[in-house]
Amino acid sequence: MLVRTVACGICGSDLHFLRHGQAMVSMTEEMAHAPGGSGMGGAPIDLSKDIVMGHEFCAEVVELGPDTTGPAPGSHVVSVPVLLASTGLHQLAYNNDYPGGYAQYMVLSAALALEVPNGLDPRHAALTEPLAVGIHAVARSGAVPGDAAVVVGCGPVGLAVVAALRMAGVDSIVAADPSPVRRAMARTLGAGEVVDPGEEGAVEAWRRLGGRRPLVAFEAVGVPGMLQQLLRDVPTGTRLAVVGVCMEPDRILPFFAIAKELSLQFVLAYGPDEFARALRAIAEGEVDVSPMITATVDIDGVPAAFESLGHPDEHVKILVEPSPT
Amino acid sequence: MLVRTVACGICGSDLHFLRHGQAMVSMTEEMAHAPGGSGMGGAPIDLSKDIVMGHEFCAEVVELGPDTTGPAPGSHVVSVPVLLASTGLHQLAYNNDYPGGYAQYMVLSAALALEVPNGLDPRHAALTEPLAVGIHAVARSGAVPGDAAVVVGCGPVGLAVVAALRMAGVDSIVAADPSPVRRAMARTLGAGEVVDPGEEGAVEAWRRLGGRRPLVAFEAVGVPGMLQQLLRDVPTGTRLAVVGVCMEPDRILPFFAIAKELSLQFVLAYGPDEFARALRAIAEGEVDVSPMITATVDIDGVPAAFESLGHPDEHVKILVEPSPT
Repeated sequence: MLVRTVACGICGSDLHFLRHGQAMVSMTEEMAHAPGGSGMGGAPIDLSKDIVMGHEFCAEVVELGPDTTGPAPGSHVVSVPVLLASTGLHQLAYNNDYPGGYAQYMVLSAALALEVPNGLDPRHAALTEPLAVGIHAVARSGAVPGDAAVVVGCGPVGLAVVAALRMAGVDSIVAADPSPVRRAMARTLGAGEVVDPGEEGAVEAWRRLGGRRPLVAFEAVGVPGMLQQLLRDVPTGTRLAVVGVCMEPDRILPFFAIAKELSLQFVLAYGPDEFARALRAIAEGEVDVSPMITATVDIDGVPAAFESLGHPDEHVKILVEPSPT
Repeated sequence: MLVRTVACGICGSDLHFLRHGQAMVSMTEEMAHAPGGSGMGGAPIDLSKDIVMGHEFCAEVVELGPDTTGPAPGSHVVSVPVLLASTGLHQLAYNNDYPGGYAQYMVLSAALALEVPNGLDPRHAALTEPLAVGIHAVARSGAVPGDAAVVVGCGPVGLAVVAALRMAGVDSIVAADPSPVRRAMARTLGAGEVVDPGEEGAVEAWRRLGGRRPLVAFEAVGVPGMLQQLLRDVPTGTRLAVVGVCMEPDRILPFFAIAKELSLQFVLAYGPDEFARALRAIAEGEVDVSPMITATVDIDGVPAAFESLGHPDEHVKILVEPSPT
């Protein structure tokens, strides 16, 4: 079906891709040729050709294709950024052929689209995707009620993890971020304690607060060095979920992880059920994502938005509204 | 109780400690001061003072301490290398005060000693400890019957993992090692396929053999670069158990682990139940560890044994018999 983008979030992955696109393409290629095959599907990306990013979108249905059933024209939809074509499964956005939500118009698979429940602001619905990332990360981490959690990094992913932890019944959460704006947002979303890592580490705060509950730690920064810091700081037996997407080589001291028998779960994306759960949580007011939206720009504002998200002191989620209203 | 060492295996950790003792002490120190505390207990090791290593021992009881009940003098025992003292729990061997099994005599806690079942060769009983490492690693890996396993590295730890996988009902095992002697041993212990990684990678062989069963991969080499090689090679969703003790900084590309949602379980040692299970498996003939013993030396032969284990083309497990017979 043809849709018109109403709002599309700028994701940290988009910033990563702009900066490390070549590395990402090379590593994906290397994996594809490894014996175990690649984690990603679809055709390789050609960086010399156009790519329209944007995978956190809410769109208005314009027209259904022939012999297609789906949400009626005029309704708002969200969708996992995947297209079911006769040629197979294709990723939207990180793709030369299938534009994402920074475009005014996109083609979606009607079968994958979820109608946004009546009345929900499409700008809030656009946060379905990042919340789904948090829901998936928490599910994969194995965190259960009674555990304590530390969340290192309060960008959109870290904040989604905080919200998802509360959804999962984990109520002892320490979140760490240098930005006071982001720390305040983490508190709003459910972190009982927030710290500036320049003053006190997340694990240090967990310890100050009692430090007895089994710990699950979320790495949601994605820059080299963060993982080793957690390997050093966390107590024996901690489960680490790596949600931050570090595109560069990283250095670890395995001895720390061995001596404390740590487990690391690397996580990516979400399943369709988790995506649907995220939409429901937002639509039913279980999670209020609205404070995460710190700005809205039109197409011309995208370069400046990318620029300001590179220095994330104020912004969390910037939405692009590519269609003239 | 006072015991006389009958046989004590030389462990890869001993070679590591001889070479990287300072790094190990520093990293243990750093962990002890981290908010989560250290994975290791006990007093810090002073490298300027004597240390008697050897934690894979079988010993003969010489004398029980006052008010102590335990195996009768003359009986053979094995024990987890830990001492319960009035001052707390102490590690044997990696310790300035409590010598390990390269000594002719040791002090053990009678409460932790397990009597070697009648008739079992004490040299075979000395392999209880390394087999327990394999049993623990397999338990932690989550491997279940129906899974496939690749074991990278067929030193004593890798071989113990192979044996423990068979004990756990995992019968599809590929083991990789450059040494033909070690590969033959892996086959004897239960690996259905063995490969020389210079010719074919372990994951490549798994794929050649069908490559459909869920995969559990064991890193049992413990040198920098091995982990990244597995992150690159394994298929999506693989569970990796890191058993090799890499004492140096290692470099990984987190993107590979993220894109394939890999999980890493770092493992160390074993529990008392796993230790007892290992002794039983050897004593009852469930696992034949005898081919792993490739040499026996007296105290004077230890330096040369360390030297030859540094180039492991022929040897697997060298036993020290410190007491003149």
